[in-house]
Amino acid sequence: MDTGIASKSVGVVTPQTAKFTEPIRLRSGAVVDEYELVYETYGALNADRSNAVLVCHALNAAHHVAGYYADDPGNVGWWDNMIGPGKPVDTDRFFVVGVNNLGGCHGSTGPMSINPKTGRPWGADFPVVTVEDWVATQARLADYLGIHRFAAVMGGSLGAMQALAWTYHHPQRVRHSIVIACAPNLSAQNIAFNEVARQAIITDPDFHGGHYYEHHTQPTRGLRVARMIGHITYLSDDEMAAKFGRQLRNGRPNYSFDTEFEIESYLRHQGSKFSEYFDANTYLRITKVLDYFDPALDHGGSLAKALAPAQAKFLVVSFTTDWRFSPERSREIVKALLDNRLDVTYAEINAPHGHDAFLLEDPRYHRLIAAYFDRIGREAPPGPGAGIGETRSRGPA
Amino acid sequence: MDTGIASKSVGVVTPQTAKFTEPIRLRSGAVVDEYELVYETYGALNADRSNAVLVCHALNAAHHVAGYYADDPGNVGWWDNMIGPGKPVDTDRFFVVGVNNLGGCHGSTGPMSINPKTGRPWGADFPVVTVEDWVATQARLADYLGIHRFAAVMGGSLGAMQALAWTYHHPQRVRHSIVIACAPNLSAQNIAFNEVARQAIITDPDFHGGHYYEHHTQPTRGLRVARMIGHITYLSDDEMAAKFGRQLRNGRPNYSFDTEFEIESYLRHQGSKFSEYFDANTYLRITKVLDYFDPALDHGGSLAKALAPAQAKFLVVSFTTDWRFSPERSREIVKALLDNRLDVTYAEINAPHGHDAFLLEDPRYHRLIAAYFDRIGREAPPGPGAGIGETRSRGPA
Repeated sequence: MDTGIASKSVGVVTPQTAKFTEPIRLRSGAVVDEYELVYETYGALNADRSNAVLVCHALNAAHHVAGYYADDPGNVGWWDNMIGPGKPVDTDRFFVVGVNNLGGCHGSTGPMSINPKTGRPWGADFPVVTVEDWVATQARLADYLGIHRFAAVMGGSLGAMQALAWTYHHPQRVRHSIVIACAPNLSAQNIAFNEVARQAIITDPDFHGGHYYEHHTQPTRGLRVARMIGHITYLSDDEMAAKFGRQLRNGRPNYSFDTEFEIESYLRHQGSKFSEYFDANTYLRITKVLDYFDPALDHGGSLAKALAPAQAKFLVVSFTTDWRFSPERSREIVKALLDNRLDVTYAEINAPHGHDAFLLEDPRYHRLIAAYFDRIGREAPPGPGAGIGETRSRGPA
Repeated sequence: MDTGIASKSVGVVTPQTAKFTEPIRLRSGAVVDEYELVYETYGALNADRSNAVLVCHALNAAHHVAGYYADDPGNVGWWDNMIGPGKPVDTDRFFVVGVNNLGGCHGSTGPMSINPKTGRPWGADFPVVTVEDWVATQARLADYLGIHRFAAVMGGSLGAMQALAWTYHHPQRVRHSIVIACAPNLSAQNIAFNEVARQAIITDPDFHGGHYYEHHTQPTRGLRVARMIGHITYLSDDEMAAKFGRQLRNGRPNYSFDTEFEIESYLRHQGSKFSEYFDANTYLRITKVLDYFDPALDHGGSLAKALAPAQAKFLVVSFTTDWRFSPERSREIVKALLDNRLDVTYAEINAPHGHDAFLLEDPRYHRLIAAYFDRIGREAPPGPGAGIGETRSRGPA
């Protein structure tokens, strides 16, 4: 990409772990007595702690947002093209935090962790989590890191739902919310895709009701199918046509059930790769996090009412060919924010890549984010600790 | 529906079986030495045999197109709203033929049939079939029934592909081709959905490499997931939103993996029902029939060249909200037909139901089909047997 900015990697990074011993009551009613969150940070927190940016992850990502590991240089962060020195979110100016959410499978407490009450992995007994629960645990991490107010909370897709939820759960703790490729809730079709993915996993005989760790197995087949379904929804029809079309692997049909078309090869590869590193119980829970997100539900169906507490400024971005969370859905968010007379910048990026566009390097998209963060950086932040008394912060654990 | 026509059912129908002992060489190169096709007919063949209509089935349907069975009155034909006395395809005027295609699981020779060479079910050894193979076997059935030329060959979706293929494989044997909710080939995204469905079936431990009959089992789990995926693509996003939306089964979230949203309940029910009556090996093959259909492939990518032999008149119908085979894809067919200066009527029906619309009662849609068949009925057909010498008919088996 050429955004006219000389950019480089944040370099070698090291994940860290924060332990929280104050019990947290989840939206489901379940209580988790103690938990750990794995996180990474890039750049330096400034003296008045006003330059922190929280990056929230989507379905399959985690805390490893940028840079690479000393012992595994090929393992580059999932949003490395966005975050780094001279990049759109410039780590020479901002202190960026990535965190693996509760229920994850990359080090934070989740279904693979040991349940202290039984001494065995939580497995199926790990509770269902929600966007609200994640925001609550992220707020505790912010307390732990001494961040009273984020310059920005940002994310794409499910990550954007968290960036949005932050603004009405902790109005005083977010200056800007960057909501990319988002929707105010899942459509019936979105839920349908999630449900098929879940059924593929749950009906895999290796699932063992979610207690597969004890059987030393994984519902790999189900997870593979689930991921293949996901990939179809991440790419636009046009992008799939451009990338794979009806291209035959061997130039002519074999009339067999071997891999025949390039698109089959791509999906099988993506499915297999994913099923080797991702935990099925986490996948199930994250699809439920998506399904349940619906801020308007508690407000008589009014998104505007749900967003009424928000005080942040917003950048909302959608992509023309995203059929998972279409621009129309982003415009619902923009409308509800404007109904609340909030400061909103909205951009609809003409990009061919579908939902995946939020992860890709597109010059117009990256220049937009760079310009917006330049604005954030130039804004006079409120004095250190301003408004802290009004937040819902629960204090460091 | 009120099409202004008093309509009733064709009543009790009885499937019949035609046996073919002349070997057929399939497009894959495989040869099937002998086979049976199960079919039904409604109405009466007229004296000059000019009023026959062949109805081709799509993915999960078969020969039971209209009416019901004496011993099973609830088992109504899949296109009963379209075909019957006074219905759009009026069986008081037309002799309608429905046939279960080769490779099917409703009585025609297919993977569940006994392979005469082994004395055991074909299972995985049953060859891959194609639209072209189906048209060839349907032509033999026409010979068997003494039908030299069809007044019309019609179908929706995969059925429409057969109606289209008839016109260039047997130009002299089709007066009209009714091509509904069709595409000239599958897009990469269409193939992707089929491939995920196949992987769900093939990786089900009960699949046993396709030889599950011997294990007295069925890959029910895989077939269930496959069907759920299919259903998502049959309905439009809007129709799903209108029918199910985010409706919770119990009015409020349970935060569990039980059925939570109405759409989940619908998909689970559809998947389970289907997996109880449909054969997985047939399902696999029919998805391949769809994938391979691509008349332009042998003509340097030119659909117009592929359709050049056609002499039929065409009715092409698409539905605005069909995202599986969108109107855009139907227009590709119309364009190629017009390039060949063929007689084409094209209608794009404004309907909310997505791909499924072709099966549903929509007054505008049904009036259109009725009007078109009225035209067919009023046309002076050529004399009996006209042009038979020029057809590619292989003669009755």
